[in-house]
Amino acid sequence: MITQKKRDEAVARALTFFETASIALTDDEMQRIEVADFGLGRLDEVGLELLTYVNTERVCAKELILFPWQICPEHRHPAVTGEPGKEETFRCRWGEVYLYVPGPRTADQKGKPPADLAEHMTVWHEVILRPGDQYTLSPDTRHWFQGGPEGAVVSEFSTRSRDESDIFTDPRIERETVIDG
Amino acid sequence: MITQKKRDEAVARALTFFETASIALTDDEMQRIEVADFGLGRLDEVGLELLTYVNTERVCAKELILFPWQICPEHRHPAVTGEPGKEETFRCRWGEVYLYVPGPRTADQKGKPPADLAEHMTVWHEVILRPGDQYTLSPDTRHWFQGGPEGAVVSEFSTRSRDESDIFTDPRIERETVIDG
Repeated sequence: MITQKKRDEAVARALTFFETASIALTDDEMQRIEVADFGLGRLDEVGLELLTYVNTERVCAKELILFPWQICPEHRHPAVTGEPGKEETFRCRWGEVYLYVPGPRTADQKGKPPADLAEHMTVWHEVILRPGDQYTLSPDTRHWFQGGPEGAVVSEFSTRSRDESDIFTDPRIERETVIDG
Repeated sequence: MITQKKRDEAVARALTFFETASIALTDDEMQRIEVADFGLGRLDEVGLELLTYVNTERVCAKELILFPWQICPEHRHPAVTGEPGKEETFRCRWGEVYLYVPGPRTADQKGKPPADLAEHMTVWHEVILRPGDQYTLSPDTRHWFQGGPEGAVVSEFSTRSRDESDIFTDPRIERETVIDG
């Protein structure tokens, strides 16, 4: 749960990231930036700012903003109504992002999740994405990611997005953001 | 058909567009920019410079560069082996692009195709895309587009791309670029 004021501040801050990355938005798009706190009410630590450009039955494209060290918690995109789960490619446009996927645990990893989140994370193989770098995730693959010291702007190219069907490893997570106060 | 020299010059020029639009590429990506002359050998007039970020069975993302007034000739993306044709969204990142789709003919249109190309064009409803503007095309919809006075950088988000299956209205067009000399 976050307050309207906190949400508005996050949108304003996200807009500065779009500007720094030289990504042009329409006025309408600026109004519909989504702020996700994943139900934990600790947006600066655990959260994501998103703009969905297009999301049809077949294709989705978004921009994701991560503030410095902000974490999108571990989740996967399962098959829904017989369709294979969401396949997604993350492409870093600005800043630095640390993506964690299945594989051998990376020593001296850059991501630093707080202990109560780390407890619920199961994949620790690090992929560092800097501007121009990208990584494609197969459907239903567990992953989490964290912005670097300056945060990051990341393009996501994927099949249809159904955020409400995402499965988070941490049982405390609620994908829908509740605004209160 | 274009010469290797012409191709190399087009790639170098395309790179200046990526730089102007603040789009970061890896060294490997810079090496694999595609130059399409559509078989007419008049690249400055009829052509497209492309970088494919990802193209899987389900999702494709590209950047398209149009030099000033450069035209991508009219074509459509038909169903292939039982799959519906390519669905694509064009999002203008920099510059200006004039997109033509089915609908009432636009008076005083901005695009100015040379007569021998115009002869083979059948859709004349204009959509002007400036930075932040986008347009989604249903599968199998005829369309063509032209860069504005400064050219354009356009992101394309789509289902799987099979350029070799595109159907061009102008029978002279060959989608594959032949380098000779």
